[in-house]
Amino acid sequence: MSPSNAERIDWIAVDWGTSNLRAWGMVDDRAVATVTAPTGMGGLERHQFEPALLAAIEPWLSADRTIEVVACGMVGARQGWQEVPYVSVPTEPIVASAMQQVATSDSRISVSIIHGLSQTEPADVMRGEETQIAGLLAQEPDFTGVACLPGTHSKWARIEAGRVVSFRTFMTGELFALLAKQSVLRHSMAGSDKLHDAVFDDAVRVVAERPADLSSLLFGIRAAGLVGGPNNLDARSRLSGLLIGTELVAMQQGWSGGEVVLIGADQLADRYSRGLQALGGTARIVDAQTCTLAGLVASRNRLLEAR
Amino acid sequence: MSPSNAERIDWIAVDWGTSNLRAWGMVDDRAVATVTAPTGMGGLERHQFEPALLAAIEPWLSADRTIEVVACGMVGARQGWQEVPYVSVPTEPIVASAMQQVATSDSRISVSIIHGLSQTEPADVMRGEETQIAGLLAQEPDFTGVACLPGTHSKWARIEAGRVVSFRTFMTGELFALLAKQSVLRHSMAGSDKLHDAVFDDAVRVVAERPADLSSLLFGIRAAGLVGGPNNLDARSRLSGLLIGTELVAMQQGWSGGEVVLIGADQLADRYSRGLQALGGTARIVDAQTCTLAGLVASRNRLLEAR
Repeated sequence: MSPSNAERIDWIAVDWGTSNLRAWGMVDDRAVATVTAPTGMGGLERHQFEPALLAAIEPWLSADRTIEVVACGMVGARQGWQEVPYVSVPTEPIVASAMQQVATSDSRISVSIIHGLSQTEPADVMRGEETQIAGLLAQEPDFTGVACLPGTHSKWARIEAGRVVSFRTFMTGELFALLAKQSVLRHSMAGSDKLHDAVFDDAVRVVAERPADLSSLLFGIRAAGLVGGPNNLDARSRLSGLLIGTELVAMQQGWSGGEVVLIGADQLADRYSRGLQALGGTARIVDAQTCTLAGLVASRNRLLEAR
Repeated sequence: MSPSNAERIDWIAVDWGTSNLRAWGMVDDRAVATVTAPTGMGGLERHQFEPALLAAIEPWLSADRTIEVVACGMVGARQGWQEVPYVSVPTEPIVASAMQQVATSDSRISVSIIHGLSQTEPADVMRGEETQIAGLLAQEPDFTGVACLPGTHSKWARIEAGRVVSFRTFMTGELFALLAKQSVLRHSMAGSDKLHDAVFDDAVRVVAERPADLSSLLFGIRAAGLVGGPNNLDARSRLSGLLIGTELVAMQQGWSGGEVVLIGADQLADRYSRGLQALGGTARIVDAQTCTLAGLVASRNRLLEAR
């Protein structure tokens, strides 16, 4: 970032999750600088949030003005900087009046945190994904349909007329990490993150036929290594396929009606797309970080309109 | 144990699992002394098995004779004292010719380790449970039907005419431990091990209706705590019911034909029994440790017959 850019930055967008903080220096709706820090919400006590933010964005601050910061993600959770209550669906993904300003010691910043979304029946919550959905709608205002946001806790949201009507969370990503790293299956998982496509597709189809068998099919990965000899690439592919396949068959009503928009990145979004194809569905991938930034821009615009 | 018993002990039965070693001093088919040590196979290098065994059974040994030791469990696994290959089903649970003697430095003991069982299609393995099944058959030689052995990796075995015809493993217990202690659900799990029966039963029935929804129903436990306020007793009961319910519905063909024998103990066997009742099945609990000891006795008798 050049000094001339720093002088022009007029607000700061922040995506502050459990593991990382990412900030963008903005000129109107355009990012002209970015910084990432490992100071995620998960490792911070309440009094450490302001210093962590200042450390990341210090070069963009100046003593003679107060710069606006808009943040989304786990920073607004109960264990975050300040708990910002959820807004219940059905709702527009971003509600300006539900965003909250946080008191700061440093007068060079004025920080607003975006609320998450909640659902009562069945109980569900999201925090951060609402901003990505707002970003999708900023790019495609007429979008109606189902968006899937793969991740540690993947979300499926039904979107109609600019509103999130309902949503559902699956622990698929967290189960994958626990099983691959900490269960008896870890013995079969060493090696690269690459996947064997045919094994993945087969696992998706097998578990879709009989989803109740999941924990038996999982142990089968270990047993296959003991009975037939280990094959770590196959084992990893099968684990991924079994878990994603179970999620996809549970959401079949959601995706069988038309194309799913996958708000994701890299290998994980590709796998969901592959899995949907294996079951006869179709998906389109929209870049997650682009959606996050577009959603932060939309949120800031809502704040400006509300003033 | 009195010294007079020690003098009379003529062989030693050992259940040597991942976490613990339990030994019984035997007079014919009767245990007259027992000892438990925390030296499970999981914490031992190969050269540490003999010293660990000797430390546990030293009081029963004397310099002027060689005493027979018969051991079952993970001691015979690849990472155990000596790998004893599996016997493929269909088979009698114990095959004397497949048991293996281990070389020892100490001439006061002569150690035989029981094989496990394996299945090729679908791939599956057990090690230790074959001895419990042999114990069930020693007590009920005409038993035909399905036995369920709940645990970290629960097993369901189809038994006919004294033979294990086929079996299936579920990772249910390991999933429960991972989710309760290491996942986002851990925040809802503090407190006692007691369960709320009605919540457990309801969870069993809910997941039996839609087993593919498991990972979404699991996240619902966390979401219910965030949206409706925490209730740790309910959360723990629900987690247990969702996981056991999924296993039970997968095995419905196995238990819908008649009474299941649960080879188990304490709360876990009770929960499987409750779960089966919630879905319209019936179960009878047979004490696991009694079966283990009876199976070790049967194994030793097979060895004697084979000589």
